[in-house]
Formats: sequence, C-alpha cells, structure tokens
Amino acid sequence: MIPFRVNKSFVPYESTSCFPIQNLPYGVFSKRGSDEKRIGVAIGSQILDLSEISRAGLFSEPINRAFQKDTLNDFMALGRPIWQETRAALIELLSADVPTLRDNRNMRDAAFVQQADVNMHLPASIGDYTDFYLSREHATNCGTMLRGAQNALSPNWLSLPVAYHGRSSSIVVSGTPVRRPRGQVLTDVKDSRSAALMPCNVLDFELEMAAFVGTGNQLGESISIEEAEDSIFGLVLLNDWSARDIQKWEMAPLGPFNSKNWASSISPWIVTLDALRPFSCPAPDQDPPVLPYLQAGDRHSYDIHLDVEIVPPEFTGRTVVTQSNFKHLYWTLPQMVAHHTVGGCNLRPGDLVGTGTISCNTEDGQGLGCLLEKTWNGSKSVELSNGEERKYLLDGDTVILRGYCQGDGYRVGFGECSGTVLPCL
Amino acid sequence: MIPFRVNKSFVPYESTSCFPIQNLPYGVFSKRGSDEKRIGVAIGSQILDLSEISRAGLFSEPINRAFQKDTLNDFMALGRPIWQETRAALIELLSADVPTLRDNRNMRDAAFVQQADVNMHLPASIGDYTDFYLSREHATNCGTMLRGAQNALSPNWLSLPVAYHGRSSSIVVSGTPVRRPRGQVLTDVKDSRSAALMPCNVLDFELEMAAFVGTGNQLGESISIEEAEDSIFGLVLLNDWSARDIQKWEMAPLGPFNSKNWASSISPWIVTLDALRPFSCPAPDQDPPVLPYLQAGDRHSYDIHLDVEIVPPEFTGRTVVTQSNFKHLYWTLPQMVAHHTVGGCNLRPGDLVGTGTISCNTEDGQGLGCLLEKTWNGSKSVELSNGEERKYLLDGDTVILRGYCQGDGYRVGFGECSGTVLPCL
Repeated sequence: MIPFRVNKSFVPYESTSCFPIQNLPYGVFSKRGSDEKRIGVAIGSQILDLSEISRAGLFSEPINRAFQKDTLNDFMALGRPIWQETRAALIELLSADVPTLRDNRNMRDAAFVQQADVNMHLPASIGDYTDFYLSREHATNCGTMLRGAQNALSPNWLSLPVAYHGRSSSIVVSGTPVRRPRGQVLTDVKDSRSAALMPCNVLDFELEMAAFVGTGNQLGESISIEEAEDSIFGLVLLNDWSARDIQKWEMAPLGPFNSKNWASSISPWIVTLDALRPFSCPAPDQDPPVLPYLQAGDRHSYDIHLDVEIVPPEFTGRTVVTQSNFKHLYWTLPQMVAHHTVGGCNLRPGDLVGTGTISCNTEDGQGLGCLLEKTWNGSKSVELSNGEERKYLLDGDTVILRGYCQGDGYRVGFGECSGTVLPCL
Repeated sequence: MIPFRVNKSFVPYESTSCFPIQNLPYGVFSKRGSDEKRIGVAIGSQILDLSEISRAGLFSEPINRAFQKDTLNDFMALGRPIWQETRAALIELLSADVPTLRDNRNMRDAAFVQQADVNMHLPASIGDYTDFYLSREHATNCGTMLRGAQNALSPNWLSLPVAYHGRSSSIVVSGTPVRRPRGQVLTDVKDSRSAALMPCNVLDFELEMAAFVGTGNQLGESISIEEAEDSIFGLVLLNDWSARDIQKWEMAPLGPFNSKNWASSISPWIVTLDALRPFSCPAPDQDPPVLPYLQAGDRHSYDIHLDVEIVPPEFTGRTVVTQSNFKHLYWTLPQMVAHHTVGGCNLRPGDLVGTGTISCNTEDGQGLGCLLEKTWNGSKSVELSNGEERKYLLDGDTVILRGYCQGDGYRVGFGECSGTVLPCL
C-alpha cells in the first residue's frame, strides 16, 4: 500500500472548504448543457474530471476503465486496495510539489471544472436501499411518544440493529425538489373507518447518513464484523423525508411504506472511509453486551459534525434547527453490515445503507434529528430566525443537511444535502 | 391493433402443456454451455429465440432492438400497445396456417431451442421489489395466531393494501438452491436477553404471485386505478421463503428484514396480462367500501389455479400440500399499483410487486399458502406421501409452486417455481 501523505494542493481553497486534498470525495457530474455523465473528485470549488485523467492513462487498469463509466459502481466493485491506490495517486497528482498536472496547462484546462458549472447526479446506480434505526436517542424518543417511557425501546432494540428495506427508485440527489405526497390518513384516531386520502399534513425531515456498499458479498455468504468496514466505499448525507400522518396509519404490522417511499435525498459527494479515518473515535459502550457476530475487536465510530437548516420560502432567513454528530450512534457501520448479511443477504456495489435518524441528547433539544422529536409530536414549535414557527414542514421550505469532520487547519466535509418541498399535486 | 386470433401452432404440444400458442410467456435463457443471455418465448417444450427472430427483422423497431438485450427491461418499457402488437405478430408467426417460419427450415433450426437444453435466468433486472399482503384469509390467520381472533386484522387492513419493501438483490430464478439462513432468534420468549445466533429452525415457504411492472411512472406522479393494469407487463410465481423464528424476533417495529431477505424465488416465464385476459373473473366484494382512488369501474381478478408440492430429500415421493387460487385475493393488481404510487413513488420497468401469501378457506386446510398457517404455528404436522411429517421445511426439501389457467382444451400455465433447501453454512 502506498503510504498516505497529507500534502498541500496546488488548487487553492479556504481552510473551511469541505473538499481539501485530505478529502477527495467521488461524485458524478455533467457539465451544464451536456447530458454526458462523468466521474469526478471534488477539490476546493472545482472538480477533477476523472474521465479525462483516466483517458490520459494516469491510473492502472482497471481503474482507467472504471472511470470511463457514468456511475461509480464499477469502481466501487474494485475493492479497498484499489481505492487506496487511487487515493494515493490522486493525492500525488494534486500535490503542490508535484508538477505532472500543476505545470501542464492543457491537461489542467481539460481536467478541471468549476462545481458552479455542473449538475450533480446520483453517484451510483443504487440496487437496494436499506434504512437502519441506529440511534438510541431517536429510538427512545419515538418509542416514548408511542408507548411511554417504560417501554420506549422495542425488546429487540439493544440486541440487534433494527432495519427495514426502503425504496431505491425514489432516491434523488441534493437539489432535487421533493413533492409533498398524498396518502391515506386516519382522520379520527378512534375510528378505523375514518381514513381519507389527503395531502400529507405532517411532513418531516430525518437527519441521517448512509453508506455506499463497495465490494459486497455473494448470496448465501456473510460479511464478518471484522471485514465489514472494508466492504464500505464511503458515506453521504441522507434526508429520509417522512410523512408522519401516513406513517402512523400504515405502519403496523409490516413497517413504513408510502410514508417514506416518495423521496429520499442524498448529498452528491461520497466521502471515502479512508478520508474519514483520521476522525475515528470510540463508539458508545454497549450494555448489555451484544452477540459475538456483532462484537468488533476495534469498536469505533467517526466524529462527524452534522447540522440541519430550515430555510423558509423566499429565503427570508435561515435557521440551524439541529446540531448532532455521527459518533453518538449506538450501533456502528460494521455492525450494520454484519447484521444485514448474517443470514446470507447479498450486498452489491452501489447499494445504499442508511443509519436512521441521528439524534443526540442536549438540554435544549438542539441535538434532535427530526421535527417529530423536536416538536414532540407537534406539541410545541420550532422558532425560525425570521420570526415564523414550524411544527412540521410547509410548502416552499428548504431543508439543508450539512456535515464535516474538523481537522487541524482543514475540514473533511460532505457539502450539503438540500431539498425544497413542492406543494402536493 | 392487430386482432387477437386463437390459432393452432405448427409446434406440437399436449393439451396440458403450460405453454400453448395462447400463452407465449417471455423469459431469458442461455443455451447450456454458453454465457450469452437471450430473450425467448416458451411454446410447448421449446423456446422461440427472439434474438434470432428480431435479427431477421420480423418485428418493427424498436421491438427488434429490445429483443437484442439480455433482459426484458427495454421491452417492458415500450408499453401495452407495443406488447400487443408483438403478441399478435408472434401468434401469426407460430400459427399452423402461416408458412413464414413453419416452412423455413433454416430459420426454424436457428430460432427454436429445447427448454431442456437451456438455463433460465431472471427475466429482468429488478430495480425494486415490493411485497403486499393481499389475502384476507392469510392476514386473518396470521393475525389470529398473533393477537387472537377478535383483533386478527390490523385496523388498516380493510382500508388499504398493506405492503412493505423487500430485497431485490436476493431474488433468484426457479431451480436455484436456497441456503437456510442463520439469524438472531429469541430462545426464551419471556426474556429479551435470551437472543442467540443460530440456524433458522422454522423455515417456511410462501405461495405468492408477483407482477412485473411494465411502463411505470415518474417520481412525484401516480398511476390511477384505471391505468394501473396497463402498467403491468405480466405475472410470475413467487416463493417468498421465510424464516419465522427470525421474523418473530426482528419484526417489531419496522417489519420483516433478515427473515425474508436471504432468498425469494420466481418462476422464469412471465405470463402477460394479455394471455390471462380470457381468465378474468370477479374479485371478492369489498366491505366496507374502499376510498375512491382504490375503486375500479371494472373490478376483476384472474382465475389462476395454484398449488404447492413438497418433495423430500432423495425424491422419495411428492405431496401436494396446498391448492389455492389467485382469484381469492381481497385486493387486486390495480389496487396494488394505485396504492403503491398514490404518494408519488415511482415504479420502473422490471420492478417486481408481490401479492403476499395466497390462502383460501377450505375445510381441510388445503387452501393455506404457507406452513405457518397449515401447521397453525407448528402445533400440528403435514403428512407427506412417503410417510414423513413436516411442521416446517427440512434441509434437502424441495418446494415446487405451480400455476395455470384452464381454458377450453388448453392451459395458460406458469410452469414451476422450485427451490431446494441447502443446510446452513
């Protein structure tokens, strides 16, 4: 393995940029006015166009081949040693003291694009999307609202990472407007015949992150907890938009369906686990102890600051309504993968696995990852900086998730995951 | 549109064949010894190789182009008028009184393959897999075992077709062995700390059918109940293998996960709704009446005989353990599609939508679509013809689903959906 070197890049950026040379996240873009999707890496406010770099033969095969595609699936399938080889080559290529690209004006002109001049796309063809429920604080709060504090956590919650299968067709990239759904809602909670079809009236965001699967496994085999992290390509921000009134009526006995399948937004840049490694930190202790297949020799999480902003229509001010951190999740990424595959379910390159809402305990409720928790089921309001109040989202509201790891003089960031609520058709 | 004519084919077959000229189901096969996947239509014991027929330019474009692919997704996306045009052209081509193919020995030699000489594959790339819970008898039986007869149906059951998102990666074609999963199981039902990881000990089949989506819809739009049937390409048999002990422990609150995601088997031949149209029949009345978006002007189902056979290891006899019929389903295919998309969730060509277990009421329990119901949660046994008994499936057991519509002197059949249980790794 080529050693990791933290360099300065010849590409200029601020110390608060999400995309310094220490990050190098992967995404798929098209230049404005073009339909051609290309794979690139973000650096500062620019994108290094990897279809150009690979055409110049600067990587080994099969990396060059994978970077000619319009999704990252082929590259994801190559596995961690290849990802690390590529990362090392990119750091070299972008370093301030390496002349290859720095001093080749023609190649630079061909290979760099301004992020402001592109449209971003889903970075991979997502075969299956799974969503977990990893946050103890979130599960406790939701359970308390439903069943009271004594029975807040379901009996299995501390024994396995609870999850359900989601909908992959409706995953959209940041910036895509989302349409308020219509659905069946119970209008009188005491009368099961009072259901009516109406626009969702309890529209929520959920602050999540999600892992893109890299190498995956064969059907009938499993990924051990020790191998699990190597199978993950990287992370994105995820807003799991939720229609709480639809969810409440449909959810028993088989789980959420139309309440969640109308849109899930992700940030466009996949931050690799190699870029996140310097921000590794201990994960919360687990008591009671979990079964051996969920016990890792090195139990760790990542220190990723997360926040959520609500911007009302006409952009009359913006309010950070939530500040949380990935590191609070009770269950870890490897536990998620090990549990998902323990029965032989196969993960494929490009599959997406969400964490569930990431909440943490703060006295002021600022750490709560969705409005259901923040407004305690609509019993109180969130105040916005323009003087408006929200229990749930209104048409025209924009929700922006952000995330970053703070290094010494630099940040490894996720950029943003945003979406504006359109009125119901 | 070319009128539908029921003809005799120059291809010989018995009157009990699943695949007469009235059927013409689509599948994807490869000749034994070859990796090349081709699209074909079953007729008698043969396959008409549509890659050969389309190379000869016998269809209009874009049909010829779609039949050059290795999955049916492109053909599915073309829509019902094109499917009907193709069906008419195939009936013509295969008719006893049409010489084009009948009298062209070279073309016949190139275009026909024996089903015995091929491997069948998944007919489409399945983007998303959804499973419904459409059978009132099944839902009532499961609910009675869980909550007692008074509360058998969940409050929403008569108001909406309950569904959950399943796993598409682990869908396999008939004939693929399935591996008994391992998973977390509660060993002492009174102690939530007694969970252990072990091989599934309560392994079940589920007799289902599933619709392959044809044209689908755009995200944010919906498919009305009147348009819904035109969006469906055709049906297959589905065995939704289930690990009941894993399911019981994991299911609350977000639904089945590892209990269902380790394998789902489908039959290889997609029978089109145009082939099923002669077997249209009334669907069960719905009381209470459903909401307008679920009410069809022409409420109908299909009369499809279904049965399930268990073949013990070494093939020491075979026993039909279940005989049911698609027509008993309380909720219909159009209701499934209209509900799935009412909130704007997009269905894509090749998506698979399952019905849930198809049970019906008979005095002897012969109509029940899974062992959970047949053995009433393991409290009694099913007797096999070789004298053995089963509460649930044993390693080496083969489960075969079959289905057909009985016409006047012919059958429109689905062939079979089979799978053999391999021991846990």
